[in-house]
Amino acid sequence: MSQEDVEAAYEFDQQAVLKELRAILGSDSIITDPAGLKPYECDGLTAIREEPWVVVVPENEAQVIAVVDVCRHAGVPLVPRGAGTGLSGGARPRADGVVLSLARMNRILEIDPLNCTARLQPGVRNLAISEAVAELGLYYAPDPSSQIACSIGGNVAENSGGVHCLKYGLTVHNVVGLRVLTSEGDLLTIGGSVLEAPGFDLLALLCGSEGMLGIVTEVTVQLLPKPPEVIVMLGAFADAENCGQAVADIIGHGVIPAGMEMMDKLAIQAAEQFAHAGYPLDAGAILLIELDGTAEEVAAVGETVEHLLKRSGASHVEIAVDPEAQQKLWKGRKSAFPAVGRLAPDYYCMDGTIPRRRLADVLRRIDELSQEYDLPVANVFHAGDGNLHPLILFDANIPGQLEATEEMGGRILELCVQMGGTVTGEHGVGIEKLNQMCVQFNALELSQFFAVKDAFDPAGILNPGKGIPTLTRCGELGGMHVRQGDLPFADIERF
Amino acid sequence: MSQEDVEAAYEFDQQAVLKELRAILGSDSIITDPAGLKPYECDGLTAIREEPWVVVVPENEAQVIAVVDVCRHAGVPLVPRGAGTGLSGGARPRADGVVLSLARMNRILEIDPLNCTARLQPGVRNLAISEAVAELGLYYAPDPSSQIACSIGGNVAENSGGVHCLKYGLTVHNVVGLRVLTSEGDLLTIGGSVLEAPGFDLLALLCGSEGMLGIVTEVTVQLLPKPPEVIVMLGAFADAENCGQAVADIIGHGVIPAGMEMMDKLAIQAAEQFAHAGYPLDAGAILLIELDGTAEEVAAVGETVEHLLKRSGASHVEIAVDPEAQQKLWKGRKSAFPAVGRLAPDYYCMDGTIPRRRLADVLRRIDELSQEYDLPVANVFHAGDGNLHPLILFDANIPGQLEATEEMGGRILELCVQMGGTVTGEHGVGIEKLNQMCVQFNALELSQFFAVKDAFDPAGILNPGKGIPTLTRCGELGGMHVRQGDLPFADIERF
Repeated sequence: MSQEDVEAAYEFDQQAVLKELRAILGSDSIITDPAGLKPYECDGLTAIREEPWVVVVPENEAQVIAVVDVCRHAGVPLVPRGAGTGLSGGARPRADGVVLSLARMNRILEIDPLNCTARLQPGVRNLAISEAVAELGLYYAPDPSSQIACSIGGNVAENSGGVHCLKYGLTVHNVVGLRVLTSEGDLLTIGGSVLEAPGFDLLALLCGSEGMLGIVTEVTVQLLPKPPEVIVMLGAFADAENCGQAVADIIGHGVIPAGMEMMDKLAIQAAEQFAHAGYPLDAGAILLIELDGTAEEVAAVGETVEHLLKRSGASHVEIAVDPEAQQKLWKGRKSAFPAVGRLAPDYYCMDGTIPRRRLADVLRRIDELSQEYDLPVANVFHAGDGNLHPLILFDANIPGQLEATEEMGGRILELCVQMGGTVTGEHGVGIEKLNQMCVQFNALELSQFFAVKDAFDPAGILNPGKGIPTLTRCGELGGMHVRQGDLPFADIERF
Repeated sequence: MSQEDVEAAYEFDQQAVLKELRAILGSDSIITDPAGLKPYECDGLTAIREEPWVVVVPENEAQVIAVVDVCRHAGVPLVPRGAGTGLSGGARPRADGVVLSLARMNRILEIDPLNCTARLQPGVRNLAISEAVAELGLYYAPDPSSQIACSIGGNVAENSGGVHCLKYGLTVHNVVGLRVLTSEGDLLTIGGSVLEAPGFDLLALLCGSEGMLGIVTEVTVQLLPKPPEVIVMLGAFADAENCGQAVADIIGHGVIPAGMEMMDKLAIQAAEQFAHAGYPLDAGAILLIELDGTAEEVAAVGETVEHLLKRSGASHVEIAVDPEAQQKLWKGRKSAFPAVGRLAPDYYCMDGTIPRRRLADVLRRIDELSQEYDLPVANVFHAGDGNLHPLILFDANIPGQLEATEEMGGRILELCVQMGGTVTGEHGVGIEKLNQMCVQFNALELSQFFAVKDAFDPAGILNPGKGIPTLTRCGELGGMHVRQGDLPFADIERF
């Protein structure tokens, strides 16, 4: 199908398709009434809503295969959905499509303690994995803030990270195998139980593909031994400048903390009011650092880090050794989003990545934008890998504020690209960042993305309209394009 | 084009194409005489040779683009080649095709000390990168045994590893950006200067694609700060069993050494005779462990590792602190291949990956195969990540020994798959492992690989016949297929 079709409505015989779906699924596995559809109107990107035509909640792989067959034959768009905690609208439904919820396929199929792997259905909650293998002394490393609710299938779709991805990587670095159903009905086994696999790296291609290439029906994850020792350190700084310097010094010294999180003044104050984590309210910025490893290792590296923090101007360094104290420090960070959310009726969580060295510049520019738009911004981010999460505070009930917020958000992401970064860190593109993708990529590159999608989804029914902007859309936004020497979007006749 | 065509000969007007190539390239950039073609008859997989039709050695990207245009229009197969050190025949030429050598495009284009990245032409030697940034206190982590000669472009094509990939990952984990030319003549910029990138992960897809998807004209790599402290430890064991146990204990303890290499008796003896590394000749197996980090960290972890080595039965533990002593210990390992090579007229280096826990089993089975085929085998491998390198010794001049060696090699790789591993660790598939790919993947999965290739190379001229076996080939080898519940290769009408 043409790349442009995804913006048009899909037409099919709704009654006939509904009849076929009912034949496949039990009555409690298919939702068509407005009340039942309500929860599926949006995912974590709550600002943008749409009532889906139908929601199906299959209980097993055979039902998933049957649903995909029906939709392929009738040409019905399918929007796969995990726990719906995604922040970029990857699971935003279509009025002309089916939402395929994998929430009921939530069984842990196999745990292999010797090989340190677990085979899971896509609906298994992220945190449930670590809980299930805790007694074996193992855990699953990626821990998005939503880990209590988010599912491993959704983590694969968005290639989710978390506070520990600095040392332990994103989802793609912790998944060793996938079972994937293409829209052609082909069930592929990708990867296996070891980290190396021959052939093209389809596993990496699928991670972060936002349900556009296939539907994940099984995930095999790598489990790690729980580190014998953990400490959490808090460094308080007068301003973000010194804090950013400390980050550079620590990484430059060859230390890779398990986690290194930075929060600015507004985020600190919101989190402290909410979680009483004991953060210093007079600080302009704080750094939370987690170190793990053997007892000797942690003690040794801890000393080094404390020295580096003080050298780069930390006014105060706190070290939490016992688990309660550590959880208290982390509680503030992990509740930062809801905490900031209490400061205003609405907030918009951004997600961009920048080279670490541009940290201070970017924070300054964000502050300028905040003043220009008269919208407060709280900054929370994964400092170690330069993944920024500015939270823009606004009130959707004040006419124009939502639009102003979206525009400002777009400018923050373009700023990330100009600084040599990218428009997404760990939240995916979904529908939120389609315009920014026009900034990040040129027409040739976007066409290559569509060619790859066609290689998995020739019918074009898997989550159409997400992840990749059409060339027409980018053409209309052509002015946004900041890269040099690229084919101008105006000149897209050849596609 | 059809998947099957790659096994047929490509037909085109040789004189016309040659005329066009001469118009693009200087006379010293195009080779057609037998003497000049000789060095290009094979890569590191020397057992299999073929004289290429023509070799071109462009000096810049513009010439590469022009050569690809000519070959696309005339339908001439192109075999991209780096330094020709690959061990799986990925650069094996075709009698009906052009070898595109990137050896002359060997300039370091940019070094960014702040962002710790280097932008390179594909022909830059692996070791030359670390040499160029040494004065900045930086280095490039992946270090294949061939690092003195192999090129970064070839490393990308084969997703090369090395003794440090246990801690620092394969090429894919250390490359942040690529400039890639598709056979359509589209020049794509993939990734950038940060490790995160939105959109499908084409960077991971290109790494290890063996020149079948595009021609890499630029590579941006991540550089790491040189660890302030390094020690190398040698643990000697009576047998491979205890040695494998030590590996499991160390990883299980949460220690990730910079490198952890294992050698068996035959490999130890060959390496010692050749390199005088000071290896204990009475040992049944040795483990070489490199630890790096801050001084405090290395000292602390070193104690832990020494304790674990002794606990699992090391008869002798040696710790090298000064660089000379460390280089001496590594010299034995790094020269193991040539050293073993001196024990027989020819040797065949295998490359498979197994779950660590199956180590002892696999070594026992390899020993049985060695006796069955009456061919000696030396085992050298990256113990930490279960990447096995059995070296089969043979004499090609003894009728039947090459065939016996290839058959035995195939059985070793199938053994790896049966043990839950894969047919390749870090040497790629090339032509060497086409049959084993039929064991690793079913018809649906192989067809998906071809669909991805078509998305980048619709003309089907990029390194045809490498990396992915045709379904016909697998059909003929159908009996090899060990996986359960898959579509039998006999039943491939649908493709």
